[in-house]
Amino acid sequence: MNQKARASAIRPTRVEDYAEWYQQVVRAADLAETSAVRGCMVIKPWGYAIWENMQRVLDRRFKETGHKNAYFPLFIPLSFLAKEAEHVEGFAKECAVVTHHRLVAGPDGGLIPDPKAQLEEPLIVRPTSETIIGASFAQWVKSYRDLPLLINQWANVVRWELRTRLFLRTTEFLWQEGHTAHATDTEAREETLRMLDVYTEFAEQTMAMPVIRGPKTPSERFPGAVDTYTIEAMMQDRKALQAGTSHFLGQKFAESSGIRFTDAAGQLNLAWTTSWGVSTRLVGALIMAHSDDDGLVLPPRIAPAHAVIWPVFRGDETREAILEAIHGIAAGVRAEHFGGRQIEVEVDLRDNSGGDKQWEWIKKGVPLRIEVGPRDLAAGTAMVTRRDLGAAGKESIPFADLPARIPVLLEQIQADMFARALAERDANTKAIDDRAEFDAFFTPQKPNKPEIHGGFALSHWCGSPTCESTIKDKLKVTIRCIPTYGIAGAKAAERINEAGKCIVCGEASAQRVVFAKSY
Amino acid sequence: MNQKARASAIRPTRVEDYAEWYQQVVRAADLAETSAVRGCMVIKPWGYAIWENMQRVLDRRFKETGHKNAYFPLFIPLSFLAKEAEHVEGFAKECAVVTHHRLVAGPDGGLIPDPKAQLEEPLIVRPTSETIIGASFAQWVKSYRDLPLLINQWANVVRWELRTRLFLRTTEFLWQEGHTAHATDTEAREETLRMLDVYTEFAEQTMAMPVIRGPKTPSERFPGAVDTYTIEAMMQDRKALQAGTSHFLGQKFAESSGIRFTDAAGQLNLAWTTSWGVSTRLVGALIMAHSDDDGLVLPPRIAPAHAVIWPVFRGDETREAILEAIHGIAAGVRAEHFGGRQIEVEVDLRDNSGGDKQWEWIKKGVPLRIEVGPRDLAAGTAMVTRRDLGAAGKESIPFADLPARIPVLLEQIQADMFARALAERDANTKAIDDRAEFDAFFTPQKPNKPEIHGGFALSHWCGSPTCESTIKDKLKVTIRCIPTYGIAGAKAAERINEAGKCIVCGEASAQRVVFAKSY
Repeated sequence: MNQKARASAIRPTRVEDYAEWYQQVVRAADLAETSAVRGCMVIKPWGYAIWENMQRVLDRRFKETGHKNAYFPLFIPLSFLAKEAEHVEGFAKECAVVTHHRLVAGPDGGLIPDPKAQLEEPLIVRPTSETIIGASFAQWVKSYRDLPLLINQWANVVRWELRTRLFLRTTEFLWQEGHTAHATDTEAREETLRMLDVYTEFAEQTMAMPVIRGPKTPSERFPGAVDTYTIEAMMQDRKALQAGTSHFLGQKFAESSGIRFTDAAGQLNLAWTTSWGVSTRLVGALIMAHSDDDGLVLPPRIAPAHAVIWPVFRGDETREAILEAIHGIAAGVRAEHFGGRQIEVEVDLRDNSGGDKQWEWIKKGVPLRIEVGPRDLAAGTAMVTRRDLGAAGKESIPFADLPARIPVLLEQIQADMFARALAERDANTKAIDDRAEFDAFFTPQKPNKPEIHGGFALSHWCGSPTCESTIKDKLKVTIRCIPTYGIAGAKAAERINEAGKCIVCGEASAQRVVFAKSY
Repeated sequence: MNQKARASAIRPTRVEDYAEWYQQVVRAADLAETSAVRGCMVIKPWGYAIWENMQRVLDRRFKETGHKNAYFPLFIPLSFLAKEAEHVEGFAKECAVVTHHRLVAGPDGGLIPDPKAQLEEPLIVRPTSETIIGASFAQWVKSYRDLPLLINQWANVVRWELRTRLFLRTTEFLWQEGHTAHATDTEAREETLRMLDVYTEFAEQTMAMPVIRGPKTPSERFPGAVDTYTIEAMMQDRKALQAGTSHFLGQKFAESSGIRFTDAAGQLNLAWTTSWGVSTRLVGALIMAHSDDDGLVLPPRIAPAHAVIWPVFRGDETREAILEAIHGIAAGVRAEHFGGRQIEVEVDLRDNSGGDKQWEWIKKGVPLRIEVGPRDLAAGTAMVTRRDLGAAGKESIPFADLPARIPVLLEQIQADMFARALAERDANTKAIDDRAEFDAFFTPQKPNKPEIHGGFALSHWCGSPTCESTIKDKLKVTIRCIPTYGIAGAKAAERINEAGKCIVCGEASAQRVVFAKSY
């Protein structure tokens, strides 16, 4: 089929209007929708199942690395926020404030907050839980025997946002927040980097999304953190998306929360703390990293269903036999494993047309589609199509071979999707030492498509906040991270550790940093 | 050991002060604690792990019965509550009201809600999600092909409570809420009862907690429901605890939310809806159904760890060999399965005393404790103690037999715990036809221990709300349910379907109902 001649399932296409394409992919895959509550989304079953798969994989890794889940209050007393001035600066301004605890009938008959039920101290709906968890840690930690304290929470949080986009920026979102306390600086720093490793592994191996990792510059740190480490992924519009962060908080939060412990020598010390988190924003990252102009493309390790199978009927004679074959195939494939779970196969027996089914499952991004019609039945084969390859990914496979072949195909899709995303990032990552070239790199290639630009620039920076903000103010380009780990697999990787001169002021610089536009 | 002579680990005991015993069990098992936020609890790792196990088992059953998880906004616009007048009556009064979306520095330097950021319409933190989910269902349901719509949500909800008790009644709690829409009355009623079955099976088979089930009387229904079905369990103070409810909502909620569908004939109809939920209250029920004066006793199917093993050292010579034996045992037992998951074994190598360890794990309720000391090592056996039997549950088991023996013991504990709870309920359930006997049954046996009374009375009721409230006002006794399914295994079961005369007014009654004090 001539790809150019055929209309894509998603309009506009990525090249035509990337932002609108994103919204249409979310809608076509039935992932989420806006709600009646400003800025809050409804996560629909297909989108929520993706998040559940993310949770399952991450939760297992958190537990394997010694963390335990707990749950802390949704509300934070106003006075708690005031404790940590720097933290407040970054977070407390735009948040949901609870001021009353009762409704009564108002003068016009409707319900109003009861003036007699005003709270003495307003409560904030948690934008993050550092302060409320810190209060518990202060109770729990007495001695060095209580350390390390390794806690994770799965929760909803609220940050009042003016402009929202499904998954990427919403007033309420779901996330996990790890909070740990340690006896030494070294242990806390190790924990910070261990969780950065967990996130990196998750992004690359489970989401098939290559990331660049390293510390943020001081101006991009989490409010109050000593160091913030990040994983940054390139989306298909070449912008960066911060996909997860891990913070070394030093003793600052321990001090404001009063987390102190007696060491083996009987001395009272402040603990060293960390926090780290990823959110439903990852679903947005997943969509933008892999999807195409026909809709969502899911990496098999995160797909709610690995495969979907449906019958193609022509007349009634073979109907029963085709159905029997389909159920047999589904049962056989479901007995196999992939990525640590049993293979999930949807059997689609709805009475809509085969064409409608095909396009629905394409738009939903299921990795493999399996069809069995009368001719397939006669040949004892099924037609298997890879979502990630389009028409090129068709293969006729004998029934008996399917249980063995499907896991191999899934593994191949997972690997190919990572390789493609990595190649795409490589192709759009460039070491740039000339300021004019730098500016041109970040200038839209076509005036009416502002999102299409060069990508990631590996350039030198002297370390001065002034040079950093010069670039930010002029080009809306920020330093995404200082890639201390290099950049895996990229041809530009070898350029990271070169010495050079700041792209702004020309002062000496020991290594390159990653400049990019970002979400 | 003389049980009477030995002091219990939990003081006061159940008989001395049941309410305070409960708090002390929660504390001693490190399940949860109160927080700095009035009425909100912190669920600690051991308590949260119990909830996670409940979630895991229930979530699997929900999915097996065709439900899909989704997520809806935390906030509900005030106008939504006004839509469903009867529903508001029951819920909307005591709730957290968000009125502002920003904080600013106040006149005295502290933070205050920004007067310029007052919301046009206040938002309510969801006390339950009928109205906000109904708004989505109204969008999602167009045709009979969209039905049944079977959705579940795991979420936090807030109901402002004046008097709170950990797990049993807290301002914020965690729960699941199922919401479904159907094309017919019959299908919706079937769904209501199917989920009541799921809850019954969960309570009895997973929690080892026998329940009585049936519809509530009209006065005890969920606000706005046509029928509310309940599962009710007896706690050890003989009070009832409502452990889960399933509501048939008829077309009332569909009407207020506008959930309409076109049927096969092209006719527009209102859908029939249901909702059903259980919450972290179940953790409270679990504690009160099974724990003893030494602390928590966990049914194996819900225990975060099935067994704990530790070494008993006497001198250094056998130290290495004992440790080796312990790790070998743990590995061998972990390879086995129980209740659909791998057996979880805690290895406790902390350097506190064996006695401290023993009492810690007793209070935490781990089903089996395994100790290996030098004499055990020499004999090639481990000392295994059942939590539910106390000193009577000790058994010396050869190392090689442990992997096969542990799952058998766990199965036995699970069955014995259910049998004991059932026998306890039977012993305290009585068919009563005489009003004086009825009143005496619910009168505290000792004036200073108000909680110890008769238990469940199976008595006749004419169906009049006046007779129902007479009993409630005088004795604080309510009709827990109309046990249409009988009462499994109880000697009183055969008395359920007898005809008789109302315990209050003497009018005719076709069957007995369950009267009890309750949580």
